[in-house]
Order: sequence, then C-alpha cells, then structure tokens
Amino acid sequence: MTRYKAVIEYDGTPYVGFQVQKNGPSVQESLQHGLYKMSKGQKINVHGSGRTDSGVHAHGQVVHFDYPVAMKTDNLLRAWNAVTADSIRIRSVSEVEETFHARYHAQGKHYRYWVDLAKFPSPFQTNYVLHHPYPCDYERMNQALQAVVGEHNFKSFCSTKTDKTNFVRRIDKAQVTLDEHTGLLVFDFIGNGFLYNMVRILVGTSLQIGDGLRPTDEMIRLIAAQDRNEAGPTAPGHGLYLEEVYYPNRKTRDKQYAQWLAYRQQQEKS
Amino acid sequence: MTRYKAVIEYDGTPYVGFQVQKNGPSVQESLQHGLYKMSKGQKINVHGSGRTDSGVHAHGQVVHFDYPVAMKTDNLLRAWNAVTADSIRIRSVSEVEETFHARYHAQGKHYRYWVDLAKFPSPFQTNYVLHHPYPCDYERMNQALQAVVGEHNFKSFCSTKTDKTNFVRRIDKAQVTLDEHTGLLVFDFIGNGFLYNMVRILVGTSLQIGDGLRPTDEMIRLIAAQDRNEAGPTAPGHGLYLEEVYYPNRKTRDKQYAQWLAYRQQQEKS
Repeated sequence: MTRYKAVIEYDGTPYVGFQVQKNGPSVQESLQHGLYKMSKGQKINVHGSGRTDSGVHAHGQVVHFDYPVAMKTDNLLRAWNAVTADSIRIRSVSEVEETFHARYHAQGKHYRYWVDLAKFPSPFQTNYVLHHPYPCDYERMNQALQAVVGEHNFKSFCSTKTDKTNFVRRIDKAQVTLDEHTGLLVFDFIGNGFLYNMVRILVGTSLQIGDGLRPTDEMIRLIAAQDRNEAGPTAPGHGLYLEEVYYPNRKTRDKQYAQWLAYRQQQEKS
Repeated sequence: MTRYKAVIEYDGTPYVGFQVQKNGPSVQESLQHGLYKMSKGQKINVHGSGRTDSGVHAHGQVVHFDYPVAMKTDNLLRAWNAVTADSIRIRSVSEVEETFHARYHAQGKHYRYWVDLAKFPSPFQTNYVLHHPYPCDYERMNQALQAVVGEHNFKSFCSTKTDKTNFVRRIDKAQVTLDEHTGLLVFDFIGNGFLYNMVRILVGTSLQIGDGLRPTDEMIRLIAAQDRNEAGPTAPGHGLYLEEVYYPNRKTRDKQYAQWLAYRQQQEKS
C-alpha cells in the first residue's frame, strides 16, 4: 500500500460537485472509478482537500489515496488519465508519507472568480464565467474588499446550511482586477480556509457594491453583523475555480506529526 | 425592407455547421428562427459569408439579411440576441446598401487553428483545441508554411467533395506561433478565399511536417502535385475558428456596383 497525492483539474459543468452524491455524477466518483478499473476491481477511496459545489471548476484540486501496489508516478498518471472522463485531468501525481491527508494538512487555498461585464455574453463562456452586464466599478469593489483581509468572523458570508460553528478565518489576499488578455474581471481570494459558499457570497456582495447598491465600507458592517441575511446573494457556481491548495513541506509535516504523537503518548501516560 | 450586415460569434459544438441541413441544428437556422420570432412570423433568410463545417467555431462570421421594417441597430442587436441560442452571439449589426452581399462582397478571410501539444489535454478545451501530444517543431512548420504564401493552385489542399473547378487562391499570411498566454500553438491564415477543408488540410499537413514525418519543403511539392491524395490528413473541425471576414469599404462597393451596372447596360445595347 502506497499513499499518493494528486493535483486535479476539472470542468465542473457535468458534475453535481466534487463529492459523491446520490443525485448525479461527481468528480470523486469518476476518479475512484478510474482507480477501480486500473487496480482490476479494488475499491480505492479518493480524499479531496474539500468539496466544490455543482458547476464549480478546479485547476488545482488536491486529493490523496492509497494504491494497493507501489507504481511509478509517471505510469500512474498516464493510466489514470486514460481511464478518467475528458472533463477531468490529473495534472500530477507524487508519492507521499502514509500520514499525509489532503484535507487535514491543507493550510490554505486560492480561489478565482471570473465575471464578464459585456452587454452580450460570449457563447464560449456560458458555463465558465458569470455574465453581469452592468456598469460595475471594479476599483470600488477592490477598495471595499480590503476590509475582509485579515482574521475575521465570516458568519455573514457563510451559507446557513453549514455544519460549522467556528466562523473565524484568515484571508491573506482579496482583490479584483481587470484581466488585460480577456477583458474580464477576475476576483482572487487566498486564505487559510473558506466557509460554505464564502467566496460566492463575497463575490455576490462585492458586485452589489460595484453596482452602487451598497456603500464602499459595507464589508466592515457585514463582518460585525455576523448575519447571513445582511450580506448579498450567493454568486452562481459556474464562475468559480479552485486554483491551488497549499500544504506545509514534508519537513514541517513530519514535525507536526511527531508533535502530535508526543502529545498523544503524554495523554496516555497521564 | 432594410438590409443589415451582422457580425456573428458562435460555439460550433452543438451544430452540424453554419448552413441549414436536414440532419441537425445549424447556426443559420437558429439565426433565422430568431428573426422569425422578432418579426412575428415572417420568414427572413440569413446569408452567410460562407459555410463553416460541423464543430467549427466563429468569432467573426458575417451575414446579411433584409428586415421588413427599418429598426434602430441597437434595438435589433438586443432583440436578436435575446431570442437566439446561448451558443450564438450577435456582436454587431449595421445598416448596409440593398446591394450588399455577405458572400459576393467578401474579399478575404482570417482563419485560426489552435493546437495543444501537452501530454494530457485540458478538460476545458475538449471541443475547442486540437490535442496533439507530440514533440511537434513549430519553427519547422512555420518555415514550411511560407511556401503557401502567394497565389497558387491549392487543389492538393481541397476536399475531393468540392464542386469548385478553379483551385487558384491567394494566401497573404500563413504562420504558426506559440501563444505565450495559453502555451498553445496558433495557426493564422489570411487569404482572398479558402477552398473546402483547405485550412484543415494545411494544418494536418503542417503537423506532419512538424512531427518530422514530411520534409520542410513539402508544401512546394504539394502545390505542384495538385492531388489531394498527396497531402496530409484533414485536421478536426473543433480546433478551427473563422476570425474575420474582410470587405471593401462602401465607396469601393458603390464603384464596383456602378461598373457592373454600366457593363450590363452595354451588354444589353449590343
């Protein structure tokens, strides 16, 4: 048994989301089915760094799984891509220690959200960019977004369907720029963790600020309010991309594991 | 009755091609159906600058049509986009003289063809870029392509299914570059006219040159051969985009029309 980490890219359009669900095809299911075929019928669980919703895309989702035999990563990469749907690409595979965990070890994520302000939307981007044909002021949005940088309680920006009780997260970067190449607006969010629908509610609220429907200092008020009803709408999933998941390096992970082991041993002694 | 010219963008994936056909949905049919709805049930023909094949895309297809009443172009644009499929966008509409013809007046076209040399294809580009995972030498292709620039007989690069008998066309630009932004190869062809499948056969042959399967001076031999069987395969339609159609300006068109009228009158006299 060998544990592998893989970086996955997918077009979320045909899926109910990353995670296996009863109501339709998921990315996780397709990845697991590929491994099932490769290993001649062994059920192998694929663990993601977190869920992505229906229609949400990824350029850098990270997963881990245990493969029954040690396999060269190049061969694993080629074989897995060959048996997995065209809408999913495994970008890279690497061997990791048997205690590595895609979700527990994740220390940060980068999300992107694309918005098209053109009067008429591009026929090529129906499922890949939010069409928002209004004279939205992105510098105003960018100014407003600076208030969310730092450690705050983001309860106002979390779906009420969550099972979380701690709403404190740290955002290291929140910005919106005009992409020169495409003429589209692109939101970038980097943080140590994101609540359910958090990026989409931040974008939905920002667009209302950009449209002049809310004041520029609105984010400060919303952080204090801690009430989902006070924030703006949840922007659609199809504009959102999980770009990258950040992990501590191997040395730090080993150190963290040693600390945890020592802590557990001390607990057992006492 | 007022004649309008329109620039159209479309994702060719769901269509059998630009032109109305019995075996499936076409871009022309969708555009005509939109005008039918707008004009409360009048059948209005939409004339394209030329056909595009199944799966072929366009950023700048040009059409003309006669609308029963004069309508402000802004209103026409908004209404037509509202009743036309998401995979088609009307980019602009302008009023033209009643003798303007999208096909007869076209004096040149610009086609693009996108190729991805990556080992594993992007899940977002299955229908939009040709995946060609080989160590293809684009500088070699570019060198080879310079032989097709100029006026030549392109019979070797024309599908045998054509009804044309004159195979002489002029190519003003033929190049392939590495797009820095996407890392993809992009072929550009500008010429006064293109035969059936001509761009796709030029690309299919170029890729064989890039792969080292044919010599660099192959295009010279193929132009002389005038035999479709000597050239390479027809590259798939989904990598191809009609970027722009060129027209003479209004003054030149009026002059051309006056010359034609004078010619006809002289013919009638004699």
